[in-house]
Amino acid sequence: MSDPIEALRAHLAPIDDLESAAAVLAWDQETFMPDGGAEARAHQLSTLQSTAHERFVSDETGTLLDRAADATADADPESLRDDASLVRVTRRDYERARRVPSSLVAELSEATSRAKQAWKKARAEDDFTIFAPHLETLVDLSVEKAEAIGYEAEPYDALLQEFEPDLTTAEVADTFTALREDLVPLVDAIADSPQLEDDVLHRSYPQPAQRTFGEQILADLGYDFDRGRQDVSAHPFTTSFSVGDVRITTRYEKDYLPSALFSMIHEGGHALYEQGIDPALDRTPLGDGASLGIHESQARLWENHVGRSRPFWRHYFPKLQDAFPDAVGDASLDAFYRAVNRVEPSLIRVEADEVTYNLHVMLRFELERGLIDGTVAVDELPARWNEAMDDYLGVVPDTDADGVLQDVHWSMGSFGYFPTYTLGTLTAAQLMDTVREEIPDLDARLAEGDFDPLLDWLRTHVHQHGRKHTAPQLLERVTGRALSATPWLQYARDKFGALYDLDERA
Amino acid sequence: MSDPIEALRAHLAPIDDLESAAAVLAWDQETFMPDGGAEARAHQLSTLQSTAHERFVSDETGTLLDRAADATADADPESLRDDASLVRVTRRDYERARRVPSSLVAELSEATSRAKQAWKKARAEDDFTIFAPHLETLVDLSVEKAEAIGYEAEPYDALLQEFEPDLTTAEVADTFTALREDLVPLVDAIADSPQLEDDVLHRSYPQPAQRTFGEQILADLGYDFDRGRQDVSAHPFTTSFSVGDVRITTRYEKDYLPSALFSMIHEGGHALYEQGIDPALDRTPLGDGASLGIHESQARLWENHVGRSRPFWRHYFPKLQDAFPDAVGDASLDAFYRAVNRVEPSLIRVEADEVTYNLHVMLRFELERGLIDGTVAVDELPARWNEAMDDYLGVVPDTDADGVLQDVHWSMGSFGYFPTYTLGTLTAAQLMDTVREEIPDLDARLAEGDFDPLLDWLRTHVHQHGRKHTAPQLLERVTGRALSATPWLQYARDKFGALYDLDERA
Repeated sequence: MSDPIEALRAHLAPIDDLESAAAVLAWDQETFMPDGGAEARAHQLSTLQSTAHERFVSDETGTLLDRAADATADADPESLRDDASLVRVTRRDYERARRVPSSLVAELSEATSRAKQAWKKARAEDDFTIFAPHLETLVDLSVEKAEAIGYEAEPYDALLQEFEPDLTTAEVADTFTALREDLVPLVDAIADSPQLEDDVLHRSYPQPAQRTFGEQILADLGYDFDRGRQDVSAHPFTTSFSVGDVRITTRYEKDYLPSALFSMIHEGGHALYEQGIDPALDRTPLGDGASLGIHESQARLWENHVGRSRPFWRHYFPKLQDAFPDAVGDASLDAFYRAVNRVEPSLIRVEADEVTYNLHVMLRFELERGLIDGTVAVDELPARWNEAMDDYLGVVPDTDADGVLQDVHWSMGSFGYFPTYTLGTLTAAQLMDTVREEIPDLDARLAEGDFDPLLDWLRTHVHQHGRKHTAPQLLERVTGRALSATPWLQYARDKFGALYDLDERA
Repeated sequence: MSDPIEALRAHLAPIDDLESAAAVLAWDQETFMPDGGAEARAHQLSTLQSTAHERFVSDETGTLLDRAADATADADPESLRDDASLVRVTRRDYERARRVPSSLVAELSEATSRAKQAWKKARAEDDFTIFAPHLETLVDLSVEKAEAIGYEAEPYDALLQEFEPDLTTAEVADTFTALREDLVPLVDAIADSPQLEDDVLHRSYPQPAQRTFGEQILADLGYDFDRGRQDVSAHPFTTSFSVGDVRITTRYEKDYLPSALFSMIHEGGHALYEQGIDPALDRTPLGDGASLGIHESQARLWENHVGRSRPFWRHYFPKLQDAFPDAVGDASLDAFYRAVNRVEPSLIRVEADEVTYNLHVMLRFELERGLIDGTVAVDELPARWNEAMDDYLGVVPDTDADGVLQDVHWSMGSFGYFPTYTLGTLTAAQLMDTVREEIPDLDARLAEGDFDPLLDWLRTHVHQHGRKHTAPQLLERVTGRALSATPWLQYARDKFGALYDLDERA
């Protein structure tokens, strides 16, 4: 193999195959695997991941990267732009992966395995002390990992950049501070207004009809069922085995419509991204989302800017009435639109509305940043959590199970992950500002159930590029600006100001 | 790792993980994978298989085997019996795998991939000439493979022993000749008798009830749904990812009961074997069936000796009437028992009855043995097929699609596989002779729906041992005899003599 780029691709492709195989096994584990398969599955996943990792961090990868870098450096930059991206992104992943010693990878793997069990027990028994020593270990190992990787300002940078390359903790903090400044008054103003009714959502919605209705929406949005499928799992997720096989999952509550409906549109947004990546990037490190924040932006954009919009329901509400005559036959479009946009401070992040969700995220970001920089001790975490809930949302959980123990992320050692949820929310709004400039009749098209212009725009500007650009680069290219809280705040003030009849001060 | 056996196990376990992962991906491909996933899946499977193969044929495996062999040679043979089996079986696999050059493995892989496409086209267009050149290539490569592996008497030995270690082509031929001698007159006698009616099977059997009824039988037989599951695929199969996760598939025909019902019991028989292997053998080369023939024996034993027996239906027929009142409400147990045991020479192997099935297998064995030893040319295969059909079964296909092109096996380069079907049939009958000696009230137990004594016996004598013994060793240990056609012939004469009211000459 004389072409250095082809040699690099040939080396990386089977590594990607192993990672995709692991994704298939993980999908099966959450959807169809019988209980008896768990022990062997853990071994199989561990073997696939370590085999992929060993091949990737091998000296051979470094040698091939050096040769490919020489080849792309000498050539016409325009014609080799994709190859240069491949080299750049692969080198970044490679150097990051090489810096973390295998012993630390193994320690983290074992510690998270134990911590996840302890977290389950702690949450079931509402006893934080069961989880605390495991969390301490994970914090220590994560700091060690951050030190190994290296960072500019603070160790949290290194962890954050696993999910958001090129973004710093300080930038996130600045963005969140700006967001919070205007968000808290908005939430307060909403709280002072008459609440929107959502009884219509708490009626009987038979599961088969939920599935049929939701999958029709997914197909309408552009999700290709010939290159994917939807199944049921305890927690909804999206997973991709190639651009030709991108699967989503959901869960149904027969007495509460939004649970499955909006999770389908949310996961559908993730899946549209994965299905839209240039097939030429398959089996390379470029064949994935630019960052978790960008990924989340696609989910939030379809879920909230489309799925919770009035034009969307202008099209779908009559179909909803046909599908669920008993539940919504006597309801109005307007009442339904208000119901799916009800804002109410609550205890549980995954059940939070579009507005207060961000406060749940900020709280977690501040606490985990403190855990990593040592200003928050593990044993004071429950108290700090409850204080922050009171401060941010005005509600305090009765139990740690509904408080600090509610999320699985920390038990998985995933520090730096939470901010991506709100980064995605902000990114979606910023992208939508540009979309609305470039597709002036968007609402009219949505009201006709015509999602092609929006999907085409996203395919062209976001999806197809995979990981060729980092999130900040992509946002700058597409919207002409760095990430800002302003577009989302404006969107939220407009939408919820109208819904809650707020005056301009909110 | 100082213990040589532990070092060997630690080396082999991740290889087994990779093979199990490939099995999960293959299962997904046949059950749930969307069409768009096919191209990437081929890459993923190829990477998993080649990664497992490379690790297995590495010099390291040889070194570890040598050390482990020394360790087991020095120690008390009884205490190390399992370890000695591990070393012996692994070395056999290793030496076999090492003898086939990687270049030949790759050539065979590519040739079968092309041949399978050509076979599909040839069958669809009923044109053997489309498939012929591919089949010639596969025959040539298979002979090359046999030469590389080595053999005692003829190259077919080397191919057969991939599925039936320790068995020779001559032994198979002798057994089949003995079988044929008595089988052909039996089939003729049946043909001369009044035919049994099976109209009752060709009625409307709604699929959901077929599934419920069949899965209840599977559970009753002892198939553990906490360590498995059943799904739908084009062709029924059993696959195992560990002793804790053994899955089966079936297919339903709404107007023909036996299709799903007996395939469920058949695959259930395979699955009971896999679920019964000693869990200590998981993640080693011993954690599998002793041979394909032994595996098939378990499927045939449950399908035919249990599932098509009168005691079985004494228990289940009333339940069948409850499940399908429209189809069998007015039928009698006796009529139903006769219907599921109707014998009729036919064109298609997979639809053949218990008796004539063996003639389909013998025909294939003779033809493929001839292909490999050069006495049958590829271009004369269709004519030879039709002659043999006429000779063995008295029926001749109108088309090659219903003749020589009906089976996928040759397009996969699987020469030596077909005989295992009839070896399994004969083995099942031979095992059942011993079972009936040791469980004298077996029929009474079956008629009560009590399958525990039979399953316990099979677990003890067959299942738990995995690959510790070869098929001939196992059969000798359990039945005290080498494989023989006599027990099956006696069983068939007794059963079908009574059903067809034949005199003793048959």
